[in-house]
Amino acid sequence: MADPRFFKKDKAKTLEDLAKISGGVVHVPETAKLMIEDVGPLDQAGAGQISFLDNVRYKQMFASSKAAACVVAPQMVEFAPKSMALIVSKNPYKSYALIAQVFYPDAYPAANISRAAHIDPSAAIGSGCTIEPGVVVKANAKIGDGCWIEANAVIGEGVEIGPKSRIGVSASISHAILGAAVRLYPGVRVGQDGFGFAIDPAGHVKVPQLGRVIIEDHVEIGANSCIDRGAGPDTVIGAGTWIDNLVQIGHNVKIGRGCVLVAQSGIAGSSVMEDYAVLAAQAGVAGHLTIGKGARIGAKAGVMKDVPAGEEHLGAPSMPVRDFMKQVITLKRLTKDQKSE
Amino acid sequence: MADPRFFKKDKAKTLEDLAKISGGVVHVPETAKLMIEDVGPLDQAGAGQISFLDNVRYKQMFASSKAAACVVAPQMVEFAPKSMALIVSKNPYKSYALIAQVFYPDAYPAANISRAAHIDPSAAIGSGCTIEPGVVVKANAKIGDGCWIEANAVIGEGVEIGPKSRIGVSASISHAILGAAVRLYPGVRVGQDGFGFAIDPAGHVKVPQLGRVIIEDHVEIGANSCIDRGAGPDTVIGAGTWIDNLVQIGHNVKIGRGCVLVAQSGIAGSSVMEDYAVLAAQAGVAGHLTIGKGARIGAKAGVMKDVPAGEEHLGAPSMPVRDFMKQVITLKRLTKDQKSE
Amino acid sequence: MADPRFFKKDKAKTLEDLAKISGGVVHVPETAKLMIEDVGPLDQAGAGQISFLDNVRYKQMFASSKAAACVVAPQMVEFAPKSMALIVSKNPYKSYALIAQVFYPDAYPAANISRAAHIDPSAAIGSGCTIEPGVVVKANAKIGDGCWIEANAVIGEGVEIGPKSRIGVSASISHAILGAAVRLYPGVRVGQDGFGFAIDPAGHVKVPQLGRVIIEDHVEIGANSCIDRGAGPDTVIGAGTWIDNLVQIGHNVKIGRGCVLVAQSGIAGSSVMEDYAVLAAQAGVAGHLTIGKGARIGAKAGVMKDVPAGEEHLGAPSMPVRDFMKQVITLKRLTKDQKSE
Repeated sequence: MADPRFFKKDKAKTLEDLAKISGGVVHVPETAKLMIEDVGPLDQAGAGQISFLDNVRYKQMFASSKAAACVVAPQMVEFAPKSMALIVSKNPYKSYALIAQVFYPDAYPAANISRAAHIDPSAAIGSGCTIEPGVVVKANAKIGDGCWIEANAVIGEGVEIGPKSRIGVSASISHAILGAAVRLYPGVRVGQDGFGFAIDPAGHVKVPQLGRVIIEDHVEIGANSCIDRGAGPDTVIGAGTWIDNLVQIGHNVKIGRGCVLVAQSGIAGSSVMEDYAVLAAQAGVAGHLTIGKGARIGAKAGVMKDVPAGEEHLGAPSMPVRDFMKQVITLKRLTKDQKSE
Repeated sequence: MADPRFFKKDKAKTLEDLAKISGGVVHVPETAKLMIEDVGPLDQAGAGQISFLDNVRYKQMFASSKAAACVVAPQMVEFAPKSMALIVSKNPYKSYALIAQVFYPDAYPAANISRAAHIDPSAAIGSGCTIEPGVVVKANAKIGDGCWIEANAVIGEGVEIGPKSRIGVSASISHAILGAAVRLYPGVRVGQDGFGFAIDPAGHVKVPQLGRVIIEDHVEIGANSCIDRGAGPDTVIGAGTWIDNLVQIGHNVKIGRGCVLVAQSGIAGSSVMEDYAVLAAQAGVAGHLTIGKGARIGAKAGVMKDVPAGEEHLGAPSMPVRDFMKQVITLKRLTKDQKSE
Repeated sequence: MADPRFFKKDKAKTLEDLAKISGGVVHVPETAKLMIEDVGPLDQAGAGQISFLDNVRYKQMFASSKAAACVVAPQMVEFAPKSMALIVSKNPYKSYALIAQVFYPDAYPAANISRAAHIDPSAAIGSGCTIEPGVVVKANAKIGDGCWIEANAVIGEGVEIGPKSRIGVSASISHAILGAAVRLYPGVRVGQDGFGFAIDPAGHVKVPQLGRVIIEDHVEIGANSCIDRGAGPDTVIGAGTWIDNLVQIGHNVKIGRGCVLVAQSGIAGSSVMEDYAVLAAQAGVAGHLTIGKGARIGAKAGVMKDVPAGEEHLGAPSMPVRDFMKQVITLKRLTKDQKSE
């Protein structure tokens, strides 16, 4: 059970209610009214708790689990312990996520504007917002209804933030328009100048960065990540894209819908990630390239040319993952041969 | 045109005035008095707007551009549309940067010391400074004339900052001396202890870090980058060096004048970058090495030995770029051969 | 000598006292009462100053040093200048660190709770704490005796911090329990949600992150590093582990005692580093792996499978360092052969 100092649990629910919420179905109708009080991992959950099985590797753990209930895929039902109630779902992990969300809702604090926040009189603050101490909201900024601006965050002049967004501790935003339900984690930097200048031994000459950052609805940006504003065009983060911690997004970059960028990855100026593309941890994409729709760039890859839609690339310089794996094997084999000479 | 919520445009200027500012010359004297109101990209600029052509790849776009005026290199003049006025420059990108700067000057706000800043009575604040809410300036700090200290930045005890510098939101500085016109972006960390200790299973023993960080004039340091102070010698960032976001500079590092360090690169303790050297994105330099004057380290390179002046290196471990490219080709070819066996 | 604007030096001590502190012995009894006033590097130290020799490479510099005293290993004694007093130690670097610590103690400021800090009435603050302006301490947080919470740091609801800990400027902590003498550098992010969600084109579904971050005694975490909280299990950083700047620690990660993680390295969700393991700069570890006790992962390595205890790995994908070096040589040789064909 989650530590009650940090997490508030909602009240118990019937298996039937959880099935409805999760998009699954109760396997044995007689268990529909079973009361479930909490979620828990397969090997720890017990009476009153629901778990999930998503990976066939844990089948054994599942078979001996003492969880009162479990979310499983249809093909796993037969391995369930006799006493376990089941919700059957084609996507057990997603179903479990939805169930965990009802037990532990992402609750915002009661609306309150701290007297220790510094809000310019020309700023427009929506109804039902929480603005914590030390927050600075500059002239003409607009903050939508029900936003939560955490302590010491700074909202720049003219910035617009859609409803139900949450801006983390000490985050900073300038030259940006944010949609609804956007979440910036602590220390995120949005809207500072891109790294654009004419190199000159007599002193680099800055090219004024005249674009903005546009962040669409339901985007999440992880702690201490940086999104530079455009040089002329905007930098755009598409709806539903999730960005992890310490990620770098250069100026003019366009990221589509539902993309995933894992920790410490980076994408250089003017490159494009089409919808649902994935950039794994510590990967990098050079400037002016396109990562096609649904393409997957592996961890530590260094992308130096366009990646077609749907392909999976790895290596630096990156290549299709099967080619990379062949090269790894070839080099290993040749090294062995050299030794035996 | 840049979003007026975020950018204030200066008044119109004659082509002649812009030529003078940019270091170029008006190509057709009759166009000298043409009024220019704004800058814009080649494919979008129209009446009253000036653009630039820096890359021969865009020659076609240039030939069909509707921009009233354009900055071009001498050899491109012949491809210009008939109706377009021209400023001819040997360095069109730099000339354009200078023109864009006069339309969109890097204006500081009117001088103002917020009553919500926390300034130690012993600190010396120059004339004409802007100090925003939540800023903390500790004992004996000295801030030069015309500085802009953004919200929630923290200036440590005894720190000195030269005139016209700008310290970004939530940045922190300790044990450091900064020159004139230095700019730290939001979240930059300057002057914390370097990562120096005697490794010991009974508990690592910290070596007191007794040096400082010296940042010379006109340095820019990108968002959330970290510059550790020296262990005994100082960490030094030379005049006019530009550092991008999320860059790591270890203790005792000496960076020369006019260097460029791109996002997520890092340089370990006691290494030296001589003047005008470049470290591309996600590259790393091990400790106690020297990157010679004007050397260029490519993206994701891992430098494990000295790099002579003027050379371009790539790979991990890094090597001259032509050697790296040959290795890439060799491995590809050998892999193909293996498959055909 | 360290800049007195930033460093306060303690009073002079006898060589005898320093030997005792350092775990070494005075080599010539007649020098036991020699007064030492400061530490300094071999090539700069003079009268009244003590230095150290840890690396045989600097033997020449040692032989000509003008330092009044030096900490050396037994086998280096014979190379010392005649006039130099010596402390002999099996671990001169550690001994020097201990000596430097007594001259430059890591002094906390006098206890003081700023009236410009925002402390919830339900929070418990120990005795002798320093809490600087702009700090926010939320409901039910507990801060131990003698802690130093630097300006604009934010301590989340229910967070517990052990005695003598120091939380850096603008750092943020939530959902976490910290031990004694923990030090977070500026901008560190502890306790935010891990990057856990069910990928779904219709909108990724967040999996509530219900674990905590447990940081044991004497841990140091470098500037702008990020430690996500667990998804269900906790994320744990073992006692005496040192983490450098810009490091990423994913959810559920378990790091043992005395580990070292160098700048810009990262470790993905649910992986384990056993005691005394080392992750060098810009290295990465994929999820659900184990780095065995005392294993060393080299700079820029990409670890994709378990690393046995005590091994040293390098490369991406990583392998034992001798195999990696052989591959580097093989590829170099084969590339030369290809050219000569």
